[in-house]
Amino acid sequence: MAVGKETFGVMHPVKGFRLGTTQAGVRYRNRRDLVVMEAAAGSTIAGTFTRNAFCAAPVTICKHNLSSLAGRSEQPLFLVTNTGCANAGTGALGMENARAVCQAMAQLAGVEPANIFPFSTGVIGEHLPAERINAALPNGLAALQENGWEGAAHGIMTTDTRPKGASVQLKMANGTVTITGIAKGAGMIKPNMATMLAYVATDAAVAPDLLQELASAATQASFNSITVDSDTSTNDCCMLVATGQSGVAVSAADAAELERFRAALMDVYLQLAHAVVRDGEGATKFVAVEVVAAASVDEAREVAYTVAHSPLVKTALFASDPNWGRILAAVGRASIENLDVNGVSVSLNGVLIAEQGAVAASYTEAAGAAEMQKEEITIRIVLERGTAEATIWTTDFSYDYVKINADYRS
Amino acid sequence: MAVGKETFGVMHPVKGFRLGTTQAGVRYRNRRDLVVMEAAAGSTIAGTFTRNAFCAAPVTICKHNLSSLAGRSEQPLFLVTNTGCANAGTGALGMENARAVCQAMAQLAGVEPANIFPFSTGVIGEHLPAERINAALPNGLAALQENGWEGAAHGIMTTDTRPKGASVQLKMANGTVTITGIAKGAGMIKPNMATMLAYVATDAAVAPDLLQELASAATQASFNSITVDSDTSTNDCCMLVATGQSGVAVSAADAAELERFRAALMDVYLQLAHAVVRDGEGATKFVAVEVVAAASVDEAREVAYTVAHSPLVKTALFASDPNWGRILAAVGRASIENLDVNGVSVSLNGVLIAEQGAVAASYTEAAGAAEMQKEEITIRIVLERGTAEATIWTTDFSYDYVKINADYRS
Repeated sequence: MAVGKETFGVMHPVKGFRLGTTQAGVRYRNRRDLVVMEAAAGSTIAGTFTRNAFCAAPVTICKHNLSSLAGRSEQPLFLVTNTGCANAGTGALGMENARAVCQAMAQLAGVEPANIFPFSTGVIGEHLPAERINAALPNGLAALQENGWEGAAHGIMTTDTRPKGASVQLKMANGTVTITGIAKGAGMIKPNMATMLAYVATDAAVAPDLLQELASAATQASFNSITVDSDTSTNDCCMLVATGQSGVAVSAADAAELERFRAALMDVYLQLAHAVVRDGEGATKFVAVEVVAAASVDEAREVAYTVAHSPLVKTALFASDPNWGRILAAVGRASIENLDVNGVSVSLNGVLIAEQGAVAASYTEAAGAAEMQKEEITIRIVLERGTAEATIWTTDFSYDYVKINADYRS
Repeated sequence: MAVGKETFGVMHPVKGFRLGTTQAGVRYRNRRDLVVMEAAAGSTIAGTFTRNAFCAAPVTICKHNLSSLAGRSEQPLFLVTNTGCANAGTGALGMENARAVCQAMAQLAGVEPANIFPFSTGVIGEHLPAERINAALPNGLAALQENGWEGAAHGIMTTDTRPKGASVQLKMANGTVTITGIAKGAGMIKPNMATMLAYVATDAAVAPDLLQELASAATQASFNSITVDSDTSTNDCCMLVATGQSGVAVSAADAAELERFRAALMDVYLQLAHAVVRDGEGATKFVAVEVVAAASVDEAREVAYTVAHSPLVKTALFASDPNWGRILAAVGRASIENLDVNGVSVSLNGVLIAEQGAVAASYTEAAGAAEMQKEEITIRIVLERGTAEATIWTTDFSYDYVKINADYRS
């Protein structure tokens, strides 16, 4: 199940960035479960990673390599992703297996192992079949092509029901740059630093420090602002690669151009993050929880997350039941101090439901029910405590969420 | 659905405490939805209440009356409970309606309005039909009897599938005292100060300050340590009444006897709290999450709650799937600083699953699966950070949870 009937749009290739997808039989046969991506020599790279203390072995290696390269390499970079096994909760053997894949890839490609970024997604606590992956790496390399985005978007899927991609082209003062990305993720989604897995590439030339700053800021307002089930994955990674092959440089030297690039990048990140929510496990609704007039952004996010995580709010959304009392109850239990409920108002797609902490005089059940029937719902909560605001995007909670997660390993 | 086939045990009457149950037609006809309880003149009373900022009108009145009486009254006390309407999120009119019920009850009983403690449970955001309730109060009063516990346990139910009660008798140095209580609650259960509704009475004589201290401590280790769905209700109240009519006084003057009384009281609170979990909405499992060797009790509780609230852990429990990676992932995302995952071990009903942050060498899927099939599951998490510990009791997350909460208002 998923919200809307999104089609996979046009993916503009990014010069200097190639993707190849193949089958390694990690967990299932006849499934595209291995994706190799190559960023040409001279690319810069940035990333954001899960803050889960049980971060997976490949995440540990990615963070280490990113740091040791200082975000730039004279050799090509390779990003190797498998599905079917998360290689998390696997201890020392997990690190060995992840390193074995990096070494095999480095040898095949003739680069240093620090140039290999490994990613895994799937069941936690099972060991990675490194030999099967290594055996498939040559096919992955042979499949590399700049038009490989759609195949790769399929290749990284697990419980996703559809591939997720976003691509924009931006005419800048010195030429046109492309920003293209893909993401996967449908469950265990409350990213903290990044989503399950997302890869964005641009042919702009961006220095490593600026690239990391752009990646971190875009992640915070996109992947770090979505939640399906409140469960932060052990494997979240979001990578941003700049090949520079458009010949267009982006830097602080031209602040206006930088801001245009930042906005275009944000657009791609948001499209991908929203696509993850729309394809949330069992999702039938796409819900934006907007909290405004808060004392701080942290407070606004706390209230928005409390509403977005409430099983009672989520099941009411699934039922299309305007049971707004559950929204008030969630606001009331959020960890914020001295909330004056008389200042709180709540609206649903613009229909005022509660004001001054109680049912609004103008509210009718029919008006609320009409909005709750819709697939796209905005819950707007006004706190009257300040000027800060935040939006968190989420899904409802359906039978299918339980079914998918009760059946996942079978 | 509920865990186990508990029968409603013997409820020892408490001298000086009477209960009457009747029908007021608050939301449905032909349903026992109004319960009146009377504590004889000279009783002491203590209570713990929800910390939800949107606390219901009756909760506000209870807190006010408890304070203005200073926990003791020369007149009889009355506790009036309706189901079918929570009278929360109802603003000034909600306060008016709750006061109208208190005034009607005070007039009928010939006591001051401060002696009336009102309680409501049901849908949030709808106005209380005070007139229908007031019309039924005389029947409630006429039904008062010391043997009214079972009827009252039924009368306070909403989505509960069975009544919940606990009763102990304790032979003390100066005579026998009885402690008897009932509770309701099946959803919107993550009490913060108390569960949805619980009433405990004893015929011991206990001064108000000590009674409140006993009530608060027992609540913290029982109702404040359970969670069904992480949603703290707007209406949680847990009341403790001491009628003194056994002639046995409990006080700090005899520390050993006080501790025996405290343990017996704790027993009743825990039985009721566990009964609420076993009857959690859609529950098929009763799960204890024990966290030991933590740096502090707060830290232990944070980790235990994160595991207990994880939708992925809860759906794996429902599926009887020993997908323990989800437990590790939940521990890893808990808000505790500098967790060294190499110190973490996890066992399931005594079967060691993970040690040093990874799958245990001795673990077999068959052994894990055998434990997960059981209805009663203890997840024990060792952090190796100190000596503090905490236990949180919870349920799994089933189709029926979604069904119950998607259908609740229909």
